[in-house]
Order: sequence, then structure tokens, then C-alpha cells
Amino acid sequence: MDFKQLVGKLETLDFEKLYQDDFFLTWDKSREELDAIFTVADALRALRENNKSAKIFDSGLGISIFRDNSTRTRFSFASACNMLGLEVQDLEEKKSQIAHGETLMETANMVSFMADIIGIRDDMYIGKGHAYQKEFAESVQMGYDEGILEQRPTVVSLQCDIDHPTQMMADSLHFAHYFDGMENLKGKKIALTWAYSPSYGKPLSVPQGGIGLWTRLGMDVVLAYPEGYEVMDEVVEVAKKNVEECGGSFTITNSMEEACKDADIVYAKSWAPFAAMEERTELYGNGDFEGIDALEERLLEQNAKHKDWTVTEELMKTTKNGKALYGHPLPADITGVSCKEGEVDASVFDRYRKELYQQASFKPYIIAAMIFLQKVKNPKEKLEELWSDADKRLNDK
Amino acid sequence: MDFKQLVGKLETLDFEKLYQDDFFLTWDKSREELDAIFTVADALRALRENNKSAKIFDSGLGISIFRDNSTRTRFSFASACNMLGLEVQDLEEKKSQIAHGETLMETANMVSFMADIIGIRDDMYIGKGHAYQKEFAESVQMGYDEGILEQRPTVVSLQCDIDHPTQMMADSLHFAHYFDGMENLKGKKIALTWAYSPSYGKPLSVPQGGIGLWTRLGMDVVLAYPEGYEVMDEVVEVAKKNVEECGGSFTITNSMEEACKDADIVYAKSWAPFAAMEERTELYGNGDFEGIDALEERLLEQNAKHKDWTVTEELMKTTKNGKALYGHPLPADITGVSCKEGEVDASVFDRYRKELYQQASFKPYIIAAMIFLQKVKNPKEKLEELWSDADKRLNDK
Amino acid sequence: MDFKQLVGKLETLDFEKLYQDDFFLTWDKSREELDAIFTVADALRALRENNKSAKIFDSGLGISIFRDNSTRTRFSFASACNMLGLEVQDLEEKKSQIAHGETLMETANMVSFMADIIGIRDDMYIGKGHAYQKEFAESVQMGYDEGILEQRPTVVSLQCDIDHPTQMMADSLHFAHYFDGMENLKGKKIALTWAYSPSYGKPLSVPQGGIGLWTRLGMDVVLAYPEGYEVMDEVVEVAKKNVEECGGSFTITNSMEEACKDADIVYAKSWAPFAAMEERTELYGNGDFEGIDALEERLLEQNAKHKDWTVTEELMKTTKNGKALYGHPLPADITGVSCKEGEVDASVFDRYRKELYQQASFKPYIIAAMIFLQKVKNPKEKLEELWSDADKRLNDK
Repeated sequence: MDFKQLVGKLETLDFEKLYQDDFFLTWDKSREELDAIFTVADALRALRENNKSAKIFDSGLGISIFRDNSTRTRFSFASACNMLGLEVQDLEEKKSQIAHGETLMETANMVSFMADIIGIRDDMYIGKGHAYQKEFAESVQMGYDEGILEQRPTVVSLQCDIDHPTQMMADSLHFAHYFDGMENLKGKKIALTWAYSPSYGKPLSVPQGGIGLWTRLGMDVVLAYPEGYEVMDEVVEVAKKNVEECGGSFTITNSMEEACKDADIVYAKSWAPFAAMEERTELYGNGDFEGIDALEERLLEQNAKHKDWTVTEELMKTTKNGKALYGHPLPADITGVSCKEGEVDASVFDRYRKELYQQASFKPYIIAAMIFLQKVKNPKEKLEELWSDADKRLNDK
Repeated sequence: MDFKQLVGKLETLDFEKLYQDDFFLTWDKSREELDAIFTVADALRALRENNKSAKIFDSGLGISIFRDNSTRTRFSFASACNMLGLEVQDLEEKKSQIAHGETLMETANMVSFMADIIGIRDDMYIGKGHAYQKEFAESVQMGYDEGILEQRPTVVSLQCDIDHPTQMMADSLHFAHYFDGMENLKGKKIALTWAYSPSYGKPLSVPQGGIGLWTRLGMDVVLAYPEGYEVMDEVVEVAKKNVEECGGSFTITNSMEEACKDADIVYAKSWAPFAAMEERTELYGNGDFEGIDALEERLLEQNAKHKDWTVTEELMKTTKNGKALYGHPLPADITGVSCKEGEVDASVFDRYRKELYQQASFKPYIIAAMIFLQKVKNPKEKLEELWSDADKRLNDK
Repeated sequence: MDFKQLVGKLETLDFEKLYQDDFFLTWDKSREELDAIFTVADALRALRENNKSAKIFDSGLGISIFRDNSTRTRFSFASACNMLGLEVQDLEEKKSQIAHGETLMETANMVSFMADIIGIRDDMYIGKGHAYQKEFAESVQMGYDEGILEQRPTVVSLQCDIDHPTQMMADSLHFAHYFDGMENLKGKKIALTWAYSPSYGKPLSVPQGGIGLWTRLGMDVVLAYPEGYEVMDEVVEVAKKNVEECGGSFTITNSMEEACKDADIVYAKSWAPFAAMEERTELYGNGDFEGIDALEERLLEQNAKHKDWTVTEELMKTTKNGKALYGHPLPADITGVSCKEGEVDASVFDRYRKELYQQASFKPYIIAAMIFLQKVKNPKEKLEELWSDADKRLNDK
């Protein structure tokens, strides 16, 4: 779709409720709201490709809170903010004078005096990340209502313990471009499968986010994992409900082979069992570090039993015409490259390297589109204005 | 006051000397100069509330130097710089190649090639912080005179060992809004009192800054602390002199009850004895870390004798009509929340939570106003231009 | 030269190939290309001095990668980016989720979605830094070609194991201003000499960059060091070849006195022997940390034999009319100031302090000029437009 068509598409969608609201979970939003974000992401990318400015803010801060190391998401958030005119200010907890026992309500307001957007990644402990993000949003809503903040900063989840919305939406937009349109994803089979990694405790937000979103797009979603690697029940229920409403299907299997057979897309990634992550959260709460060490050892042993859960060339041959699209949120554990045995064969990864990087390249635009729709009253008019403006991003003569 | 009235107020004030000068201590400045800063802070806030741009810089850096952890001041400085169009660049000494024995003159010039403003927080050692800030300012003045720097960056103290001007001025502006006008602070009784904290060595710049500034506003300032918690003599002299010139009164007492009785404002915060902080600086200079540990132990014991110095509901009942405004620079040590026993009862803190956050919210505007008046030749004309400009901060259609 | 003359000068030069290309080594570039950078650096400085905007980017990121601590270069890069309208985003490897074994190709693309410029300092290991920079540039070229990146970010070397181009070019521009014109450097004698420092392992990129560039300018370059402190052969060959093409001369001596005799410029700095640095790289590759410690001890002992290699007042008296310009990339090891015995006498350093700071002050403009010429299609027209625009950098009324 060209820019004009994108704006035309936007006109057909109902997405008013995104304005001034937060983005936590994809299933909080209507399908049309998600489509509006996909459409604006494409439009913002078109502006960038054509050296046109997408700066809607003359000043203002985008606060980032990463409670874990991050490269891709950190640079995607920084890129999105910069594109729209916001300066990123990182709340590094170790450089901060956050008092022991200081309430989140206080911290949230103290960093938000001139914040338009708050991007939070908090995926470490079950039951914590999403709750933290919601409490942060409620705190700044209160600060705005009380006249402490001149604007109500909106929250964009950059990953929580439940969902990873910017990743899953970027992945979906990549799939849509690859298969020539979001509507073409209907009926496509996607194998969302666990894979072996020598490290343990990788976040559940990816498989959960995948089944929560891809069932919305009418895909045939097959979630595969070895027994014992179950994900959160609530999200499984969300996926089941989606199928009823959106067509497609949702199946759980303990066979990677079954999942990948005739699949259009193979998305294979390690994660930790939900029950184990709940246990870890409890151990952590009790300060039981010996218990955590014991759990880690147990989980590594458990993982090691499933080294055959890996994306090999043979497995790829069993997919639709032997040519399924291979996807991964990156970085991947590549056998013989980043580890001895891992999630994927080096030859498979290399063959899809270009597609994998393209997949990642949608994330800044998805984040920027979320911010755009949270902040701009009349997105269609604003996009048209940005397109027709003489303002160049790089005014290089 | 509305925007027009604020600009009108500015016209009545003499504040030329702020232009191109630094801000170290409130008592370096005339009362009209302080009033100009209060007025511009309100005007900049009005611009923000009305979605108008206050960007006076098209590019330029604001350098921050925090020699201690910080959240509130860090984000306030970043907000102020961003609002005016400066990008913050933090001089993190641990990431820097500052050679052993490198002169401050050299460091100051090396980071200032494109710096318009330098914000420094250095409150750790008696006799050091203010001296460091002055030397920094002198160094860049020399660099400017010698053609090394194209502009003379001005220094804003974000706290030193003597004063905490941006905090005290933000607090004052909050009081003025609460009591409907700066002139209404005349004759108001403020209890600036020590309070118990389980930690030790909190900076003296807050009580010193308080007595140094609030006596300027014609308030009845009562400084209360247990015997042994004396503050710097020089600042006590400043406060006494202020009373002669500005009316009001200044009293020191060793009774928290006496200070709070019929007070209009209760401002209760822990600090370390000046003499002990001098001792610590000397021990530190001698590399006597055992001595420092012994001193810490002694100070914690000394603190523990004064757990009754805390803001209870009963104490608040003795204030003017039982309804004094409670103030704190945050974060507070709240009994039963952030510590077992602390500076204030949770119920008192909670009752004034909204006011405490509002108090904090003035700091970015105070800092921005200082920068604005240091950099803008014709502040009245510039404010009028910003107000009448079509430029929106968020151009959201 | 005034602004008009600078633009006129630019018209006489052929520098098209700088556009969209990287900057690794000065000897990759033609003399006219280097002159274009010198000229644009002066022009950008003139814009700044006259409070004119040089902002050519409305948004965009400048990514910095410092694999070693840095102050001068860090702030110079940040200043250059800010001046042109780019926001700096630092890739701090310790805050990043760069997987063990993650390819540079992946990291390079993941941080570059909205990057216009990548500044890399990597000078620690022989054979590594330059190679890393080249591979980074090739990776983003591929990403651009594959439609992953909307723009091709160009790389500016902020120092590698071979050359330190922004330093050497800034130094050269300083010399040119000091001696009233780049053409006046022809035939000037520069003593580029090793000097004693109590630390070891200082980078070779400075002496190598010096002989590689100053021979281009037709200077009489004398490289002096105690036996055993040889630099990279390949760069010695570059210097020799330059002499054939550009006139001037290039001599190596083991006598500091000989080098400084009648010199117009004395540039004295410690460095490590190339062979020892190669050895260190190998030990490091083998994880032989005992070997590294032993090497360090040996090198410190070796250094200590040459404490007489220092810039004294007597030595300075032997220079041209006793008045050679003293230069250093800073920070210097100053005898009695930053160390007991070092590279230079305090009185010499102090006498040239102003010139040393001026020397450093050219670096942000050199970096900005490199970026400008990499990004702007029609630099002459663009500079003229910036000069005639009403846009002020600080719009202070």
C-alpha cells in the first residue's frame, strides 16, 4: 500500500480509544485498534523512506525503564522517540536516589514532570511486570488529575511477564509484508515452538504474546513444547476465545515435528516453564537464594533432555513446500555459532538472516505508531500534513 | 497571575545581572532577581500548560555532573534543558578518561565546547561542593575569554555543601501558590526542623538553604534541632542579616514542639551535624576509613537518641489551626513505609501527598527559569513572543 | 579566512567521494578531501561563533561506541552530533543484551534502524579496532542494501589501533591557525617524540596517525623514540610514500634532542612498543593473564629507563628560536602535577595551556565536518544557506 492507501485504510478503522490510553496487552485492544497501529507503522516508515519529517513533538521526554539488559528494544524505543521529537531519558535504577521503600507512585510522578511517554520493560518475575506497568500508569494518571503533571504520560509496555506486544506486533507486520497483506495471514499455519537453549529462564512473554495475538489474525496457531513447559493458563484461555471470534485455530502439542509439518511459519524459541517461573518468584520473594540455585540446576537438567528440540534443515524440509518462513525475536542461540547446541542450525539461520533482520526492523515503527496514536488527536489529518509538508528529515540540499 | 500579569510583574523588576552569570547561592542574588526567577518559572509553566513551545535553543548541550545518586534533580534538570531545547550530556566520572591529577580547569573546558549550561550537584564534602562549582565557572570563563569556547556556559548549582537553591526556590514557589501569593508568606511561621532518620549524613544544604532563603521572604523562620545538630555558622549569620533587612524573624530552638506550635508550615528533615561533616571531610582527606566507620557508628547512635523528633499526628495538631502545610524535599523516611521509625508518620505523609508532589513539580520550572534568565537578553519580549507564536509543543492537529 | 572565503575555497576542491562514505584512516583520503574537511570545520565554527544554526537533521541518531573510557572524544562527538541535529545514543556493551557469540553484523544492524552516523573508538588491541570498524561499516551497508535500514549510516573512526584521524586532523587545523594557514605548515619541522609516562600501554594510534598525516602536509616530520619503541611498519611505509608525493621529509631517530633541535612544533607523548602490543593481543587471545601481568611489569621497567625523555624547559630552549609550539592530545602526564615524573615539565605545560585547550577545541568541528561531508549532497550551497538563514542557534531576542 502506498501512503495514500494507508491513510485511506485508516479512515475505515475505529481506533479513538487509543488516544490518551496506555498499551499493555494486545488483547486489551480491538482488532481495528491493532490494525490502526499496523497501518500507522507502515505510514511512518514511508515518511522515513521518503526523507520526510515525522516530528510531532517540539520538545518532551520519553522515559525508558529497563529492568533487564536490552539492545534491540532499547534502540527501537530510542529510535521511535527520536523520530517523533522526544528525547529519551533513561531511569537507571542504580544511578537513582530511589529510597528503600519509596512508593512507585512517588517515583512515577517524580520522573514524569515533562514526560510524554514511558516505555517499560519488566519481564523478570511472574505477577510483577504487568502489575508494575499498570500501577505506573495509574500513578501518573493521578498526578495528572491532581495538577502535578502538565500532561498525562502514556505507558507503552516494552515487554512484561505476560505479553511482549511491540515484539509480536512487529513480527506480525513482518509476516504481513512477507505474505503480501495482513489478510493473507488468515489460515496460515504458524508453529510457535519451544526450542533448546543452554541458558534457562528465558521469558514466557514471547510464546504467550504469540498465541494471544496470532489467533487474532485468523492464523492456525500450533503451540508446541515438551511436557512440563506449559505457559500461563490465562493466556491459553485468551487464545481459545480468540479462535471462536476470529476463525483460525489453536492447538497445543508436545511434538515439534507435528507443529512444523506443513507450517507456513516456524517460530522457535526457548522459554522457561510457567510453574518454575512462579516458583522462582516465590523463592525470590522469600530471599531463598539457595532455592533459586537449586531451581536453576533442575531447569538446566530439564532443558538438557530436550536438545532435539531444535530447528534443523530436516525439520525445515517438512514445512509447507519445504519453505516455511523462519522467525525469531533475536538474539537466537545458534548451534555452532553462539553456543554448542542451540535453538537453530547455523545454515537455517543464515538462509533467513535477511528476513530476520527485516523482522526486527519493524519494531521502532510499531512503537512509534503506538505513541503517535496515543498522542495525536487526528491521526489521518496529521499524517497527510506530514506527507505534504516541505520539512525534510535530512535537509541536505 | 495569568501570563500577561506575569510578564507585567517582570517589567517592574531589576534582574539584568542574572544575564550571563552563574547561580550558586540564593543570597548571592537580590530579592528582585529571585522574584524574576519565580515569575519566569510560573510563565514557563503556563506555556507548557497551554501546549506552547518554550524552545529558545535550536541546539546546544546542558552538561550535568552528579557526584552522588539522584532521581528528582536529575529528571528536573533534564526536563528543564529539554523544554528550552538543550540536550543533556551527563559527565559520568567513571566512564570518563579523567586522568589522575587532571586539573578541573582542563576537564571543565574539555566538556564545554558546545555547552550552554552546566548543572552540578556536589554536596558530599564540607568545603568542597561550592568551591568546585565556583572553580568550574571560573575555568569556563577563562576558556571563553581565550577563544577556546564559543559561548560562556553558565553554571547552575543543583546542590552544594552550603545551599540547595533549586530545591529551596521550588519549595518557596509552592508555598507561594499554596498561600495565594509570595507576599502572603510574610509573617508566616515555618518550622524548619530536624527529624529522625535511620540513615546518617544527610546533607546540610537543605536546612542551610531554608534559613538562607525563607528569611528573605519575610517569614518567621524557626530552626529546630537536638543539641549537637548545629548547621554552618556562616549561613546562620546570613539568616540573621536577612531578618534585619527583610522583616520576619529567625529563631533557633532545641525543641521541635516549640518550633511547630502555631506554625503555618512544618518542614521536617534529617541532617548531619556540621561539625561531624567537617570531621568526615578531614578523615576522608587523610584516607582514614576506619575513622569514618567509627564516626558513622557514633552518628547513628547519636541519631537514635532522638527518635521522638518525628512528625506525628499529635504534633500536627499543635500547628496553626491544626492545619499547617507539611513540606519535604523527598524522598522522606516514612515510619512504617520506608523504614521502621522515620521522619514522619505515614498518615501525615499520605494526607499531604498531593501537596508534596506539587512541591516537587516546581523544580524543573525553577531550573528552566534560571537558565532562561542567564541566556536571554530580553526575557519579557521573548516570553511574549513565545506566548503569541503559533508553535505548539505537541503539534497533534 | 572569512565565511565567504571558506566557501570559495571549497569550490576549488574535489571531495565528492566523501559523500556517503566512511572515515577510517586519513591516508584513505585524498589531500583535497582532507582540505575539504578542514575548510568545512572552519565554516561550521564560524556559524557557531555567529550564533547561526548548523542543524541539517530534523531528527536522527548518532550512535557512539566507546570500547574504552573517554571524555574529550565522547564530548566532542556529542557536540558534533548535537550541532547538526542528531541525538547521541550510546551503545554501552554492559547495558546491552548482546548475546555471547552474537555476530557484529547483527548488532550493527540492530542499533542502526534510525542511525545516520556511527562513531567508534576501539584502540585497545592490535589488529582489532580498525577491523571492527570496517566490519561494522560493511554490515550496515548490507543492511541498507537489503532494505533493513532506511538510510546507510556512515562510520567515523574516533580512534582505532592504527590511526586517530579526528585527533590528528584537529591538531593539524590548530597548527594551521597558529601558523596562519595550512600552506605555511610546509617545511615546518615537527618533533613527534616519545616521552616518559609512569603508566604503560598508551595507544600507538597517535604517533602513527601523526606520521601518516603530517607528512601529507609537507612538514619535516621527525619521529623520535628510544630503541624498542617502534611503531607499525605499514604506517612507516605510508609516511615514506607521502614524502615522495608531498615534499617535506620523514626521519626516525633515537634522540629526543635531535628531534627537537630547531623544531617549530614539539609533540611529545608516551606510547607502547608495537611489538609488545602485538604480544599483548596474542596473550589476551590465549587468555594468558599471567603473561599479560608479566608483560606489563617488563614494559614498566623498560619505560623507567627513559625518564629523561621528557619535555623540559632546557629542551624547549633548543627549539626554533626557543619558541616551538608545544602540542599534546591531552590529558598529559605533567611532572609534579598529575604524576611524579612524566611527559612534560609543569612550567612548559602551563605556558602553553591556552594553546593546548585551543588545540582540543577543534575536534568537535572536525567530527562535525566529516559528518557534514558524508551526509550533505551539496555542501557549498548548504553552507551558504545556513549562513544566510535567519535561524539563530540561541534565539534570545
